[in-house]
Amino acid sequence: MRLRVRFAETDQLGVAHHSSYVIWLEAARIEWLRERGLSYRELEESGLSLMVSNLNVEYRQSTRFDDEIDLEVTLQELRSRQLAIGYRLRRRLLATATTTHIAADRTGKAVRIPADWLAAMLASC
Amino acid sequence: MRLRVRFAETDQLGVAHHSSYVIWLEAARIEWLRERGLSYRELEESGLSLMVSNLNVEYRQSTRFDDEIDLEVTLQELRSRQLAIGYRLRRRLLATATTTHIAADRTGKAVRIPADWLAAMLASC
Amino acid sequence: MRLRVRFAETDQLGVAHHSSYVIWLEAARIEWLRERGLSYRELEESGLSLMVSNLNVEYRQSTRFDDEIDLEVTLQELRSRQLAIGYRLRRRLLATATTTHIAADRTGKAVRIPADWLAAMLASC
Amino acid sequence: MRLRVRFAETDQLGVAHHSSYVIWLEAARIEWLRERGLSYRELEESGLSLMVSNLNVEYRQSTRFDDEIDLEVTLQELRSRQLAIGYRLRRRLLATATTTHIAADRTGKAVRIPADWLAAMLASC
Repeated sequence: MRLRVRFAETDQLGVAHHSSYVIWLEAARIEWLRERGLSYRELEESGLSLMVSNLNVEYRQSTRFDDEIDLEVTLQELRSRQLAIGYRLRRRLLATATTTHIAADRTGKAVRIPADWLAAMLASC
Repeated sequence: MRLRVRFAETDQLGVAHHSSYVIWLEAARIEWLRERGLSYRELEESGLSLMVSNLNVEYRQSTRFDDEIDLEVTLQELRSRQLAIGYRLRRRLLATATTTHIAADRTGKAVRIPADWLAAMLASC
Repeated sequence: MRLRVRFAETDQLGVAHHSSYVIWLEAARIEWLRERGLSYRELEESGLSLMVSNLNVEYRQSTRFDDEIDLEVTLQELRSRQLAIGYRLRRRLLATATTTHIAADRTGKAVRIPADWLAAMLASC
Repeated sequence: MRLRVRFAETDQLGVAHHSSYVIWLEAARIEWLRERGLSYRELEESGLSLMVSNLNVEYRQSTRFDDEIDLEVTLQELRSRQLAIGYRLRRRLLATATTTHIAADRTGKAVRIPADWLAAMLASC
């Protein structure tokens, strides 16, 4: 997935604010699912979500307004109720990150990830 | 209402990004309602919302990270289904703004503003 | 310009937050300039900016996570120190907007818009 | 430091978006410095910054619009060029986090943290 740094995403140091990366990770994760035939929108409409339970970002280099960034997404761990996703952001390498997710229903209770979702994600490992 | 410009709200020009003002207006509007005994959270939980139908901001001066800003909120117009709220942002005067709202139910249909809300807001004019 | 509503751009009403539109307008404006051979990044590096002096958004319909939106940008007014840009956001028509800009140098003083920028923007009217 | 969840910080699940926590950590960190007589604004104006080199957030519970949250900040590690800061967010405990920072000059080169900053931060351990 490729995106371009928005002006609104910069801060007064002239670089993308570190919180912007968190937004990009989410967008990349949703595109990565879409490429596997998985609509996060439909998952949410069915009452499930993949809540973020851990977020870890290792910042390597800053990036500036209007830069194009490539995001590589890899599935790091997949269990029945939990998954972890890894990210590499490159122009030159900007950051690496991992997010861990827990499947939850509308009340926030942890539930199993639907079997077809498990299968589609495992197919990409 | 007083708030302080967050670092994340700046852009690479070293000033608060113009979209940050829109967030501040919302925060000031919700505080202004709270001072009148009106909980926007409860309104939403009851299935109503005050959707923004128009937003107009006249930017006068820029403001920087860590500045304290005073927001003055005034009710400009109040009808059974619609209201308009005016704003002045000062340190020195930074911006003036108006937002217009329409009461809506969960389906997005326009509905009457609850009578006690009308009364509480009119009491402040 | 086409973009997709990010999950982070929604609010608890399940629709894109009204402040997200302001970010999209900026992204569309910068793309519109790029298509005319004008790099906003270079303008900023040269010490000039097109500060937003007025923002007006007329919200028509809400939009949801993952929707694709088309943004049409039109130059509404162009003078030596100021320009106004109009926007239409469609899936079905979501919003129309206008932003007015003033050319400014690094000290915030109003300056003339560079002649080649004027020419490139006028060529598109 | 206490803050209130803004409406704009929620997402369509009805809870604060996980990226909002990153903004709150920054605001809490800057308040924590201010209480020690350290102005992050002045540090930046002097050409130094405390760039975030690592961000780790362990999400425990979600939080909703209008909730009041207490943020506890603790210095976890302080070396001549680097520091790590820990955070606990409570209403009930919402999240714990750590950010690691590297002192950098305007060119992004790692530099020593000013001695008076080291002293003021160590005084609080």
